Amino acid sequence: MAVYTEVPDDEMAAFVARYGIGDLLSAKGIAEGVENSNYLVHTTRGFYILTLYEKRVNPADLPFFIELMQHLAGRGLNCPVPVLDASGQALGTLSGRPAAIVSFLDGLSVRRPGAGHCGEVGRALALLHRAGADFAMTRVNALSVPGWRPLAEQAGADADKVSPGLAQRVMAEIAVHEARWPQHLPGGVIHADLFPNNVFFIGEKLSGVIDFYFACTDAYAYDLAICLNSWCFEADSSFNLTKGQAMLAGYESVRPLGEAEVAALPALCRGSALRFLLTRLVDWLNVPPGALVKPHDPLEYDRKLAFHQRVSDAREYGLRR
Amino acid sequence: MAVYTEVPDDEMAAFVARYGIGDLLSAKGIAEGVENSNYLVHTTRGFYILTLYEKRVNPADLPFFIELMQHLAGRGLNCPVPVLDASGQALGTLSGRPAAIVSFLDGLSVRRPGAGHCGEVGRALALLHRAGADFAMTRVNALSVPGWRPLAEQAGADADKVSPGLAQRVMAEIAVHEARWPQHLPGGVIHADLFPNNVFFIGEKLSGVIDFYFACTDAYAYDLAICLNSWCFEADSSFNLTKGQAMLAGYESVRPLGEAEVAALPALCRGSALRFLLTRLVDWLNVPPGALVKPHDPLEYDRKLAFHQRVSDAREYGLRR
Repeated sequence: MAVYTEVPDDEMAAFVARYGIGDLLSAKGIAEGVENSNYLVHTTRGFYILTLYEKRVNPADLPFFIELMQHLAGRGLNCPVPVLDASGQALGTLSGRPAAIVSFLDGLSVRRPGAGHCGEVGRALALLHRAGADFAMTRVNALSVPGWRPLAEQAGADADKVSPGLAQRVMAEIAVHEARWPQHLPGGVIHADLFPNNVFFIGEKLSGVIDFYFACTDAYAYDLAICLNSWCFEADSSFNLTKGQAMLAGYESVRPLGEAEVAALPALCRGSALRFLLTRLVDWLNVPPGALVKPHDPLEYDRKLAFHQRVSDAREYGLRR
Repeated sequence: MAVYTEVPDDEMAAFVARYGIGDLLSAKGIAEGVENSNYLVHTTRGFYILTLYEKRVNPADLPFFIELMQHLAGRGLNCPVPVLDASGQALGTLSGRPAAIVSFLDGLSVRRPGAGHCGEVGRALALLHRAGADFAMTRVNALSVPGWRPLAEQAGADADKVSPGLAQRVMAEIAVHEARWPQHLPGGVIHADLFPNNVFFIGEKLSGVIDFYFACTDAYAYDLAICLNSWCFEADSSFNLTKGQAMLAGYESVRPLGEAEVAALPALCRGSALRFLLTRLVDWLNVPPGALVKPHDPLEYDRKLAFHQRVSDAREYGLRR
């Protein structure tokens, strides 16, 4: 969480002026978002978030992200709404980077989610899937099965420096998924990164969903598997069944899972644990000197993966059937 | 500029609740302030800044800083106003650190100050000195002449790694000031760190002064010397006389300098350049591994010092007499 690009006051004021949101009164770089630089901007009209897209975001993907937020907000989802300039464009250029201004959402990320939060997230995820069902654009999930072997090869034997035997464990797990990844599940736009830092609450009530910069087209149940991984484990990597029950019930209160999705859930949980294990592993082994961001522990997902490898039925995650 | 202490949402909400400023709606860690962690907090009542005082701030000094802000705001200065809890206390404890909530000030720091900005800063500095004249508390300036030799010794011979001959230059300069530092100048509370990042503007108009965590009791003209150093040089370390004229005229429009202050100004400019050279030098040589903050270039102040060494009359800074 860092501000990578420091924008001079005069450039910031000129950029904001293009969007018809009043005169710039204040702009604070905020520690939010791992990939991009974000400013909390105050104008004579209100508060906004200004994002500069940094190197890890492919500019060709930006129209997908921007139009998705517009689409979801238009369907009533509490997510950032991009502000359009006089020519109807959301994207501009600031300090040499693509940049956009979105609405400011109140709420706080929950450090220690309870079952109530998990239920809210499950419900919000299903609402997101429903709201995105008629979104016309698509984006391949670059971090699904075909992306995993290249990541593992990038880590290579160095994986064993993080944990003995990890390189072999990861390769064996990839082979399992390459051979029998669930196909033809119901799908559409998924968030693909709905971790606790990307969900806001005011008290116990979910107030917003942010950070759509991993959103892509994939199976809905895979998105749910990502949330089970990121919300329902305790700090000691034990799975909290009460939270799993709450999340799955929350999801199904809006969008009941089909039989194929239920059958696939254990494999999807394994696969999504592997996906975060792999990206964290590569980041862990490639911390640049002077990095502003501390990498996440890959082994958290190694332990979650081990849990999923012993699961054979979605009821073990708390699914009521 | 970084957030050193990440505060969990529940602790943040409980802390804010003590201050009678409504319910917490949002809290964003902001990239402001080099020494402390700052959050921009939104409650049902408005926006505030929450500061956690990190290790480099001596807790014994906090009542001075807090009461100074209360005093100056009470005299009409545009500076953060500490919020008091039900028992009348501004200081509390959050995540194991002393913490306080102050009012949010609009405005932006100017990256490239013009003469107009310098005039505004000169005037604001004099207003600050006038507003603080009847402030009862005192705090020794630990970074004045007696503090310089220990800093130089801490850097030691390593100074020459930054620039050949720097260790010797610094020691010679310290000896000059130890022998003939201006005494008995008019004084009282000074800001002591009124750099461009600590002054907010909306357009061309100064909207606020922040970061009183170097404030202390010292000569008013020394504070002005710090501002001449930090506002009136160009990026190539040349002195911009037009900016100096504007700053000095702005200051004197509120508080004219006395004869002794005018005579002392060249020495005070030299000394304050040396003070920032020394602290930057020590920070530069002691960047901890994994540091979140990039240290400032000490040689910027080595070059400014060289300029001041050739000045013999305050008119060379733009003083009209």
